[in-house]
Amino acid sequence: MRVAILAAAMALSLSAQAREGMWVPQQLPEIAGPLKEAGLVLPPEQLANLTGDPMGAVVALGGCTASFVSPEGLVATNHHCAYGAIQLNSTPEKNLMRDGFVAATREQELSAGPNARVYVMDQITDVTDKMLAATSPEQDGLARQKALEDTQKALIAGCETEPGYRCTLYSFFGGQTYRLFRQIEIKDVRLVYAPPNAIGAYGGDIDNWMWPRHTGDFTFYRAYVGKDGKPAAFSPDNVPFQPRQHLKLATDALGEGDFVMVAGYPGTTNRYALFDEFQAVASWQYPVVGQHLKNLINLVDAAGKANPDIEVKYATSVRGWNNASKNWDGQLEGFARIDAAGTKRAEEQAVLAWLRGRGDAGKPALVAHERLVALAAETRATRERDLIVGQIAGTGLLANIRGLYRLSTELEKPNAERAPGYQDRDLPGIEGNARQLERRFDAGMEKQLMAYWLGEYIKLPADQRVAAIDAWLGGNDAAAITRALDETYGKTTVGNTDARLALFKAERAAFESSTDPLVKLAVALQPAMFEQENKAKARGGESSRHRPVYLAAVQEYKRGQGQGVYPDANLSLRITYGNVQGYAPKDGVFYTPFTTLDGLVAKATGVEPFDAPQAQLDAIAGMSAEQKAAIPVNFLSDLDITGGNSGSPVLNGKGELVGLAFDGNWESVSSNWVFDPAMTRMIAVDHRYMVWVMDKVFPAHHLLKEMGAR
Amino acid sequence: MRVAILAAAMALSLSAQAREGMWVPQQLPEIAGPLKEAGLVLPPEQLANLTGDPMGAVVALGGCTASFVSPEGLVATNHHCAYGAIQLNSTPEKNLMRDGFVAATREQELSAGPNARVYVMDQITDVTDKMLAATSPEQDGLARQKALEDTQKALIAGCETEPGYRCTLYSFFGGQTYRLFRQIEIKDVRLVYAPPNAIGAYGGDIDNWMWPRHTGDFTFYRAYVGKDGKPAAFSPDNVPFQPRQHLKLATDALGEGDFVMVAGYPGTTNRYALFDEFQAVASWQYPVVGQHLKNLINLVDAAGKANPDIEVKYATSVRGWNNASKNWDGQLEGFARIDAAGTKRAEEQAVLAWLRGRGDAGKPALVAHERLVALAAETRATRERDLIVGQIAGTGLLANIRGLYRLSTELEKPNAERAPGYQDRDLPGIEGNARQLERRFDAGMEKQLMAYWLGEYIKLPADQRVAAIDAWLGGNDAAAITRALDETYGKTTVGNTDARLALFKAERAAFESSTDPLVKLAVALQPAMFEQENKAKARGGESSRHRPVYLAAVQEYKRGQGQGVYPDANLSLRITYGNVQGYAPKDGVFYTPFTTLDGLVAKATGVEPFDAPQAQLDAIAGMSAEQKAAIPVNFLSDLDITGGNSGSPVLNGKGELVGLAFDGNWESVSSNWVFDPAMTRMIAVDHRYMVWVMDKVFPAHHLLKEMGAR
Repeated sequence: MRVAILAAAMALSLSAQAREGMWVPQQLPEIAGPLKEAGLVLPPEQLANLTGDPMGAVVALGGCTASFVSPEGLVATNHHCAYGAIQLNSTPEKNLMRDGFVAATREQELSAGPNARVYVMDQITDVTDKMLAATSPEQDGLARQKALEDTQKALIAGCETEPGYRCTLYSFFGGQTYRLFRQIEIKDVRLVYAPPNAIGAYGGDIDNWMWPRHTGDFTFYRAYVGKDGKPAAFSPDNVPFQPRQHLKLATDALGEGDFVMVAGYPGTTNRYALFDEFQAVASWQYPVVGQHLKNLINLVDAAGKANPDIEVKYATSVRGWNNASKNWDGQLEGFARIDAAGTKRAEEQAVLAWLRGRGDAGKPALVAHERLVALAAETRATRERDLIVGQIAGTGLLANIRGLYRLSTELEKPNAERAPGYQDRDLPGIEGNARQLERRFDAGMEKQLMAYWLGEYIKLPADQRVAAIDAWLGGNDAAAITRALDETYGKTTVGNTDARLALFKAERAAFESSTDPLVKLAVALQPAMFEQENKAKARGGESSRHRPVYLAAVQEYKRGQGQGVYPDANLSLRITYGNVQGYAPKDGVFYTPFTTLDGLVAKATGVEPFDAPQAQLDAIAGMSAEQKAAIPVNFLSDLDITGGNSGSPVLNGKGELVGLAFDGNWESVSSNWVFDPAMTRMIAVDHRYMVWVMDKVFPAHHLLKEMGAR
Repeated sequence: MRVAILAAAMALSLSAQAREGMWVPQQLPEIAGPLKEAGLVLPPEQLANLTGDPMGAVVALGGCTASFVSPEGLVATNHHCAYGAIQLNSTPEKNLMRDGFVAATREQELSAGPNARVYVMDQITDVTDKMLAATSPEQDGLARQKALEDTQKALIAGCETEPGYRCTLYSFFGGQTYRLFRQIEIKDVRLVYAPPNAIGAYGGDIDNWMWPRHTGDFTFYRAYVGKDGKPAAFSPDNVPFQPRQHLKLATDALGEGDFVMVAGYPGTTNRYALFDEFQAVASWQYPVVGQHLKNLINLVDAAGKANPDIEVKYATSVRGWNNASKNWDGQLEGFARIDAAGTKRAEEQAVLAWLRGRGDAGKPALVAHERLVALAAETRATRERDLIVGQIAGTGLLANIRGLYRLSTELEKPNAERAPGYQDRDLPGIEGNARQLERRFDAGMEKQLMAYWLGEYIKLPADQRVAAIDAWLGGNDAAAITRALDETYGKTTVGNTDARLALFKAERAAFESSTDPLVKLAVALQPAMFEQENKAKARGGESSRHRPVYLAAVQEYKRGQGQGVYPDANLSLRITYGNVQGYAPKDGVFYTPFTTLDGLVAKATGVEPFDAPQAQLDAIAGMSAEQKAAIPVNFLSDLDITGGNSGSPVLNGKGELVGLAFDGNWESVSSNWVFDPAMTRMIAVDHRYMVWVMDKVFPAHHLLKEMGAR
């Protein structure tokens, strides 16, 4: 009868609910109690010190999170976060994606590319008053948005006066609070260690978002700075950055129920979106745009089969599309499972009813809600057109040249007056993009992608057409599309990197008098793109006027209901915590929280993405059951993360590293809109698996030593 | 941290292994200790009394197991065990499969058909000495087999002298022990209650063998006897049988880890088969014959779509084929998972090595093994031909007429000398088959099925052809097949039930002088079928000579290894016991042992086989969480069952009814050949679900009252 206790334990576990909450550091006093209750051993106050141990070790990569794991600037993040850098250093002959990479010495460490960054937290300042001082009720949406942008630029410029820092303004609750982050911007980032895809991306797109999981999704960078210790562009003379803090590997074995926490930079959640905004996603973006992405994947797959060069160049794009469309499908499945639309509508109706019950006190928020609903309708009216034109203008080479042209117009203005993204601080990034395109561009493939979106374009109603595109096409059928693309890509020279780089910081006239057909198209498109941009800005301005009013009411309502309130994710630093635990995906099935080496072997077919290296299979075959039990591969916990958290260090109650977050489970993806406490789980790679791989399978003993693991 | 105990519990549970063992009642002293240890509350001796409580309530249906659940002869079994009877009473207008059936009064109870039986255990006698006395070393295989058959017939005839009994001889360990079972043969069996398919077969073939499961696989019969209390053919004057024992419904809630046991009549296992015999199944029967079955299903499916009458008539055949081919696929998957071939070979090699090490003492068993290997090779040589000819000769109407013709030849002999299956005791069954064929025969469909196998037949090498079939076909191509079938089925009159019944007990001359083309074919085929039968008998005779010698050695070897030894299943009464528990089908996944009403609802799509009745969905929607928690739907336990156990009562430690066994899990099906302790689980329908369905969904309050449930 000894197994009987399982029933009780399972019941407990099932009733445990995921820890909703992406807490901003300023909320630490509010969550100190719950943190200790969940199992935090460190004094909660210690987490409030963003440059202390362990928070000071957590860094942003821009789109991913990472952490320092040695005093010599070694950075741990996900394999998929470093995939662009791994790809950049790969050639058909020396394929680091397939074969993995270990730098045996510092000299062998490879540049992760001119745009790779490591951002180290320095300071957070509340600048709400300064931002709002620039606004006035009389401004229309566009004017308000521009006033906010100007203030933002000024604040950032002021913040970045001292070189070596990158400053970013984050808006919380739709413009209720603004905070300025100052981060050390390390510009020389090098690839140190990447396991082969067969470990780092084991399971590939098939296992993406899935449990059980056996992915060794980890890679190491190293941050380099000038000899003066200050950030500097890549140079052989640079030296490893010496971080104020670095994480230590846990020595206690992590087990089920144990406390874990994550600090990281989650990208976007929309838990405070209006019902109408939710519907635009659930009934249009995810199903309709998702199908477009699947169509693009099929185009590239077919071309890549015939030409391995295309496969390599578009690998990152395909991964992104795959990730998005699978994620969106999962969200739709989740929306259906938890009746997200019904919940969303009911929640909003409850707030509105509460506001109506408050009489005059409720009126401003009701008006704000009404205005936001109108803005959603405005967006909806041109969403197909905005998507299609945006995709055409945003395709590879054309997007690149458009950026360079836009830069030429912006450079006519003083730095402070330029649009965000075109200021002096952004120039290295723009140049890097222009240079790196050669690794990601194939004229034939780009024509196919353009043809796809132009095929959609010619179906648009007459009143939504863009004059510049119509003129360029010179017709409204497939033949016109083929002719225009053949003409443009046949004659353009900017596919060549030197020719393209010649346009970096070139005069506006160099574009506007160019006879290159692709440059001409980029120039011709610009007014329509400005118009589209301004309309979006105007809606943004209006939104930032009304949304804080409405969301303040929502916050008040939620607090009244005893619910914790934290702002939607916005790429700024957040803390989430909870416990290692599995979940029940459906009746009769329970997902246990750790996967094993035996499970990894059971999945191995020898065929990608289940092509576990023979060295790994051999190593496992030689282990005893106890040895295998000591090396969990991946684990689940009830933490609240989203894209941008990838690579985040997972810390135990003592603040030691126990793994790297790299995914959410399939059932959790819809939680970006409506949180599902029963099924939201984070997937992490266990540090014991990382160490074992680096010890026995794809060795890097010097790095283990550097991390103090040997 | 409270969830931490789950890990420990899970580890315990995972290490718990399924209880291998289909114990014969004679082994009860041997398993009394383990039974008590597992949780049996009753004194183990009580189970040894096969006519006492609870064993006396367990009955056989012939291919399924059942149990008395009221003093008025009410019998509980699986819906799928009663499916033939439900189908027999269904018409397109009154479809009991679709709509279910409840007899509101005894008068409304429907005959389950002339062949339906309930066999009540009366006596078991060891007759090994008598059987072996008929054999001698000088006999060849056929002579030995005939001597055994003659003795068997004589023993059975002697046993059945008193009317109302059915006697059956069972061979254990390939002829090492023979036991004669005497059972009361109840011939008037009536359908009392069957839920609609949407409950009784919820999940259909998709969920068959699967977990999580939500099938209400239960039905009730009632056993009737003459007014004198003796078995009698169906008559309106018959009265309900009053069993010596009937099961009581459990009152304690069954939970995870609780003791459960099953008494029943498992059909066939082959755990003591030779490696070569295993291979014939693993590399030929399951993959090759399995594909044939899938082809037949496709043929019937296509025809059934055009003609619902065909769908109804062949529903039982299709279910059987589906069940077999899915089961075989599962077995192949299981063989690969546990490397059954490797295990089988290694086990056999270990026994042979042990025997060789024993010198002269080991020689007889080594010789026996050699002879058995040669017999396996002999079988293998003609297996394709034997399959194809057997299928042709065994198809619907032709098989029926062949049976009647064979009967005419057997009737020329005294009863005791006739072949098994053609004695006086078998006549009602043969007549019933001849009559019931009208419910299961469609000339067009039968021609298609015959054409399929004839298409295979014409591919056979010349030396394996059957002269009678060649002569009948008059050609060797598709055209000849079409012509022969059109001619035969176009002109035959025996498709008509009266014409067919006129041949029941007819003189041999009536067949041999018939001008009916199908009767002529049946007569012409007979010599070849006799030859095939005699060859198989000769192999059977040789096997029964050598297998006991070899298996005695295997038993001795296994006992020496500390392993329990029980004979392979052979349709005779067995006991298996263990505990309610789930299992880990793969790394990171645990199947919990109970399914719920919520899980049933989650599967409902409104489309068959997930077309849960609206009344059921409404009833569940109206229940509180606690109410739902009190009604588990299906549950898993580690009992060792196989086909034939279907319908078996599942008893708790007090011997009370807690459910009905109806399936094994997908991972267990290969255990018929090589037992996999980690993944072998039994699936049962919980009695609480049965009672709830009969109370709230498809009501039969009078039956609940009869069972003492209200």
